[in-house]
Amino acid sequence: MPVTATAVIDQAYMQRALKLASLGKYTTTPNPNVGCVIVDDNSQIVGEGFHQLAGTPHAEVHAMRQAGDKTRGATVYVTLEPCSHHGRTGPCADALIEAGAKRVVVAMQDPNPRVAGNGIQRLRDAGIAVDVGCCEADARALNRGFLRRMETGRPFVTLKLAATLDGRTALANGASQWITGADARRDVHRLRATSCAILTGADTVLVDDPQLNVRIDKSAVYPHQVSELEVRQPIRVIVDGKNRLRPELQIFQSGNPVIVANLTANPVLVESTPVAPQQWQVVSASGYVDLAELLSRLGEHEINSVWVEAGATLAGALLNQKLVDEVILYQAPKVMGQYAQALFNIAEQTDMNELPQFSYVSVERVGEDVKLVLVPKY
Amino acid sequence: MPVTATAVIDQAYMQRALKLASLGKYTTTPNPNVGCVIVDDNSQIVGEGFHQLAGTPHAEVHAMRQAGDKTRGATVYVTLEPCSHHGRTGPCADALIEAGAKRVVVAMQDPNPRVAGNGIQRLRDAGIAVDVGCCEADARALNRGFLRRMETGRPFVTLKLAATLDGRTALANGASQWITGADARRDVHRLRATSCAILTGADTVLVDDPQLNVRIDKSAVYPHQVSELEVRQPIRVIVDGKNRLRPELQIFQSGNPVIVANLTANPVLVESTPVAPQQWQVVSASGYVDLAELLSRLGEHEINSVWVEAGATLAGALLNQKLVDEVILYQAPKVMGQYAQALFNIAEQTDMNELPQFSYVSVERVGEDVKLVLVPKY
Repeated sequence: MPVTATAVIDQAYMQRALKLASLGKYTTTPNPNVGCVIVDDNSQIVGEGFHQLAGTPHAEVHAMRQAGDKTRGATVYVTLEPCSHHGRTGPCADALIEAGAKRVVVAMQDPNPRVAGNGIQRLRDAGIAVDVGCCEADARALNRGFLRRMETGRPFVTLKLAATLDGRTALANGASQWITGADARRDVHRLRATSCAILTGADTVLVDDPQLNVRIDKSAVYPHQVSELEVRQPIRVIVDGKNRLRPELQIFQSGNPVIVANLTANPVLVESTPVAPQQWQVVSASGYVDLAELLSRLGEHEINSVWVEAGATLAGALLNQKLVDEVILYQAPKVMGQYAQALFNIAEQTDMNELPQFSYVSVERVGEDVKLVLVPKY
Repeated sequence: MPVTATAVIDQAYMQRALKLASLGKYTTTPNPNVGCVIVDDNSQIVGEGFHQLAGTPHAEVHAMRQAGDKTRGATVYVTLEPCSHHGRTGPCADALIEAGAKRVVVAMQDPNPRVAGNGIQRLRDAGIAVDVGCCEADARALNRGFLRRMETGRPFVTLKLAATLDGRTALANGASQWITGADARRDVHRLRATSCAILTGADTVLVDDPQLNVRIDKSAVYPHQVSELEVRQPIRVIVDGKNRLRPELQIFQSGNPVIVANLTANPVLVESTPVAPQQWQVVSASGYVDLAELLSRLGEHEINSVWVEAGATLAGALLNQKLVDEVILYQAPKVMGQYAQALFNIAEQTDMNELPQFSYVSVERVGEDVKLVLVPKY
């Protein structure tokens, strides 16, 4: 297909809309990130906006407010199909029709079954020219968690690992602080902050007694439009098949929500202060905590993305059950040696051609460490 | 110091000379790599050359031959101090004087005690302007093996490792072929080809029965100037403290030289065909093969650089004894799990602040794998 001047111009404005959309990445959950740019006939941007927080106006509304009556006859770029349903705000498709938009360029259809093409149809029915698919791959990447949940019912799962050159995560005596340097740890907090939930295992909680919260300098990451918001704390989810957790652990002290996935309710956690965790019984046929079912239940609770920080057993189980969508390995330039703890506990491998395999997505230096991003080949 | 136009021009020609010098990296051992560019008063390059092979003309001779009588009054750029001694060829300093060079720019003094400033002095005594130190860091990097040997008596030691994401080098059953992909393996052969010796342990030889030779498409790496040469095969050095090697192993079949470092001579190896290996008894006070002494002996035999491909025990011992100058880790996007073999066998570590540490030098993708280059922090 030949590239037209219109296509090139459309892509430029859509990239701007995508950039705006990404400003909401710390705050919009469970909603997707959406950006909008309105351009008049003189190629002037007359309105811009992005979705900031669930329950507040959509990107199109922000942009139309800024544009005022200049939306009439203008082209509207929006990274996700305008909504057609009365959710917490009115349907954006109707608002665009009412404002007199001439043309709407949409990066991708909304997979949300409440929209799913209806917004586009409504615009077309009103005589508006609608083009769909501009920068679709980028738009999909931006909302991969939301899309994964809409399409499979499960969140997008990122397994975060920190290890030495020789693939070790802790000394034999349990010491592991700190494997990576300050820059890598800051990167982890930034990525935790974009996640809806942090998943870990009871082993990690008992050994490290972590807070598993987001500790970042908000001003460095939150754009000014949402800078008045508190840092959103992901829900913490702990797999505890043996009811070993105790109320005095740090993770229960902050008041931020915690879900404990176990086989039977753990009575001592009811005494946790200030807030007792939710306890979900999610039991597999083989008598373990059912990780696939846990993820589905998190999906039902509108969790788009799960950030896993776990030891070798939970990491190995997630990998083995093909539940990992992405691996981020922070690799420190250190050696722990053969007695130190493994990165993955999996069944013994006997065939080089049958090993779990991945593809590198990116490789970069982060401070003194290296950050490797991979996707599994299932 | 302000940067003058002359300095900028000098650097440009010296970079050209360094590039020429590097063309000899597969062939000049035990000599250093040297390049030379001769530039006349009209800024025309009138002669170029590089050292190709020990016993054949030095870089300056190649360049002067090309320049003919245009060396008279010209500026000569050479990446290493011109020699002052009658080695296998006449002294280059004398030849430059005789040819009437006006100015000589030298990247670095030759640490070879037979030169060590004498070449520079001889030029100056003849009234030639000599500038020393242009692009010195690059010149040192080019000949780091030769320099290490001249300065310490020992070769530069590169430890090559190939491991999975989780730092494993072989399955519990010993299977390890292939961890990395074809591109990484090709890179290994290219780097073997630049090394004077390949060092390994009896374990590796017994388990993998490797050839440890260079198998490369010569036309892809050897420049046309030396393309008629056979691929140089590094000397193979095997540490065998228990005399477990046997003549029928592949490594003894090619006729390329092998040195076995052991505690007592191994009588069965005398029967090796077509050529019995040299056997060196190098015994440490504690009754092991003395690795530091072995490296010194290799230095005495004009080995500038050693490429180590070894298992966890030899790798750990070299690291522990601070004998590794550089680590190159090819990391495959695979997982072997906790039963697979470790990358380094070292003493049990109990303090996170006392781990062996490195600095990343570079991180790049090589085919489906990642190549990490590190230097130890001793």
